[in-house]
Amino acid sequence: MVDLLIRNAKVLQLRDEKAQALPDRDIALRGNRIELIAPTGAIDPSRAKKDIDADGQLAMPGFINTHAHVPMALWRGLGEDVNIESWFNDYIWHLEANLVPEDVYWGMQLGLLEMIEAGVTAVADHYWHMDYAARAVEKAGTRALLGQAMFGANGIGQIEETAAFVQRWDGAAGGRIRAILAPHAPYTCDDDFLRASAHKAEQIGSGIHIHAAETREQTQASLARRGQTPIEVLEDCGIFNAPTLLAHAVGATAGDLEILADLRTPVGIAHCPKTYAKLAMGYNNLVEWRALGIAVGLGSDGAVSNNTLDLWEAMRLTALGQKQLTGDAENLTIPQALTIATVESAKVYGQPHDLGDLAAGKLADIILVDLSGTHHFPLNSVTASLVYNARASDVRTVICDGQVIMREREHLTLDKDEIIANIAPRMERLRRRDAAAGIQTYKP
Amino acid sequence: MVDLLIRNAKVLQLRDEKAQALPDRDIALRGNRIELIAPTGAIDPSRAKKDIDADGQLAMPGFINTHAHVPMALWRGLGEDVNIESWFNDYIWHLEANLVPEDVYWGMQLGLLEMIEAGVTAVADHYWHMDYAARAVEKAGTRALLGQAMFGANGIGQIEETAAFVQRWDGAAGGRIRAILAPHAPYTCDDDFLRASAHKAEQIGSGIHIHAAETREQTQASLARRGQTPIEVLEDCGIFNAPTLLAHAVGATAGDLEILADLRTPVGIAHCPKTYAKLAMGYNNLVEWRALGIAVGLGSDGAVSNNTLDLWEAMRLTALGQKQLTGDAENLTIPQALTIATVESAKVYGQPHDLGDLAAGKLADIILVDLSGTHHFPLNSVTASLVYNARASDVRTVICDGQVIMREREHLTLDKDEIIANIAPRMERLRRRDAAAGIQTYKP
Repeated sequence: MVDLLIRNAKVLQLRDEKAQALPDRDIALRGNRIELIAPTGAIDPSRAKKDIDADGQLAMPGFINTHAHVPMALWRGLGEDVNIESWFNDYIWHLEANLVPEDVYWGMQLGLLEMIEAGVTAVADHYWHMDYAARAVEKAGTRALLGQAMFGANGIGQIEETAAFVQRWDGAAGGRIRAILAPHAPYTCDDDFLRASAHKAEQIGSGIHIHAAETREQTQASLARRGQTPIEVLEDCGIFNAPTLLAHAVGATAGDLEILADLRTPVGIAHCPKTYAKLAMGYNNLVEWRALGIAVGLGSDGAVSNNTLDLWEAMRLTALGQKQLTGDAENLTIPQALTIATVESAKVYGQPHDLGDLAAGKLADIILVDLSGTHHFPLNSVTASLVYNARASDVRTVICDGQVIMREREHLTLDKDEIIANIAPRMERLRRRDAAAGIQTYKP
Repeated sequence: MVDLLIRNAKVLQLRDEKAQALPDRDIALRGNRIELIAPTGAIDPSRAKKDIDADGQLAMPGFINTHAHVPMALWRGLGEDVNIESWFNDYIWHLEANLVPEDVYWGMQLGLLEMIEAGVTAVADHYWHMDYAARAVEKAGTRALLGQAMFGANGIGQIEETAAFVQRWDGAAGGRIRAILAPHAPYTCDDDFLRASAHKAEQIGSGIHIHAAETREQTQASLARRGQTPIEVLEDCGIFNAPTLLAHAVGATAGDLEILADLRTPVGIAHCPKTYAKLAMGYNNLVEWRALGIAVGLGSDGAVSNNTLDLWEAMRLTALGQKQLTGDAENLTIPQALTIATVESAKVYGQPHDLGDLAAGKLADIILVDLSGTHHFPLNSVTASLVYNARASDVRTVICDGQVIMREREHLTLDKDEIIANIAPRMERLRRRDAAAGIQTYKP
């Protein structure tokens, strides 16, 4: 028996950076994996316990958000039109002083709700009170790679605590949850702290999720202060001995690229173009990165910089941004944008063999996208429409780990009314900014 | 009696580049104009012939698309990942060789359908067979400023023909349709043709809608060939004696800006950031333009470069693009982005006193935007949410010239099924690219 049969779908297929939409396919799921993809009719529907008619829809891998601070969705719209120093020092680190653990439980659910509606089935989240985040993920039915953020100033003892978090949650929820060490950044963690984090990661077999070289200014400041780039600092401190998810690296130098390209352990870059544009951080040159074989995935970052957790936007801005940056419209093509959004994001997320591709044997994280909207017609190119026309509201149905979690835009795991009812009374407290109470100072 | 009463809406108000959402307002319409905006309850609902409950929704001016080639929506997705030379010479000008007048009628309806769904109530369209476009606008109930495109190579006789078009349609459909002369560009119209167009415009009291300085390369080519920038050519030929809608001007020089800032006749720039990014054209520096008092409006350009006709995208990319371009996140703020999308787009469109603002006496082009989506919650800032979170699918109801043309996403003027049924059989012919049949060669 087949547990779920998706019938009459187009199926997005990416092979060697070529993209096509296979017409008229059925997808059979057994348990949490894809058993078979075959021309419509080849699989007897009476063999399926349940089925979904996806006529007029396209099946593609669920989006993987490779870098976020999901519960920050609580504060969206509160740090606008300011540069990064002010954004941290006048807004974020005061707002975050208000955070209590239960806020993370509800803020995480809110962000997961938004991401499910946009077809995002996995997120690498870097935040605080992550036991609460993990419980939200358990409930949502999505996939997450969770890291409990650490500032060096909070003491070396954190490393044991967050290692315990990793051991508590890695592999939980039937494998949907993975956990990872998450020192914040080289500008908030000193070398001893980074070394201790790297050592602990090796000891417990964990990866590391860290911010580095977020801007060119950070790289310049690090060079001026100590003669090393932030990436060189991470290398020196042994961070790259563990599989590493590197957020941003907008300020990476040519030498940094060589370091990253030569690593034996996997390293991936989370690219969050909406946040970069909004905070005027510049873009990294993904064409060069990718030519060196460095994996790049899509990220939203937090919603106080990005405003949404929508990876359709991130995919579109990745393509548009690289064309503008390089002055060459042949760069970052539609197949490349789709590859970054799927296959490569799975690599950056650390599950390259299981995610990011619809094929027999892969985990069943599948979204069904309606292409019948006026904004897609005439559907002269399905792949162009995915990159340049589709929007979150086109996502009709979301399947994660073989389970349907949104069906024709109806949520089957999370309760929007309950989430709103629990967040609304928290907002008066959460919106306060007490100048004395910043949890950090941004001074890279 | 009031013809239509919109109750319980938030109302977007822009004054002196400050933006706010007034809560709990009712809007009374009489005929095609706004009679009164007042706190909810101040207007007796029994005085209204019809009413709409807009609880949870925001009323704002319909978007004005200041530069498009709407019927090109027929070809969306067919000119991807190529630079501008190839885009024109290998794609557009071969595809356009297939065009018959009836295609424009249906292609225009298709684009208007998409724009209505995205809350666009007016468009400055620059294309061919514009009698057919005008008939589509009559039917759609939207507003349009229509220009019949002219290439110099097609002979001076066109000017009389298009002047006749202007006189036939200007003021039609109860004033919803205006018409304008539309020589294509200085690189496709020689000086004599431009002078004759300018002369005709003055003679018949028409404005001019023209492409110029689309890229820096065009400006360089013009300087190398004749020692003048494209903007200087237009000035020399008298184009600016008529009110002018200038598409793009990405390649305008500092001297060009001075010319434009000093004009006595109104001149406005249509800014189409998605197309600029997609074709790697660079951005113009709107911060400098606006400091000189030059009006800037939002445009989509055609959907073969822009893929959609969605001005939410254009507004967002305008803000994000200027922050990136200038390296300063304090530039192009949320109120400025909203001002460009409303008040200034109305100026560029040539109806600054009637459009782009919700206030008593203005024309009633109003859209109702649903802010209850998960991607807006918590609604910490309505204005931030409009610029950075809202999407076309949030538009629920569209009113143009006092008439409801889309109600809770149901079209009341155009018939999507009819449009699709009429376009589908045309597409095999329309998609052909016969290398011998280009209507022009791009060689600026």
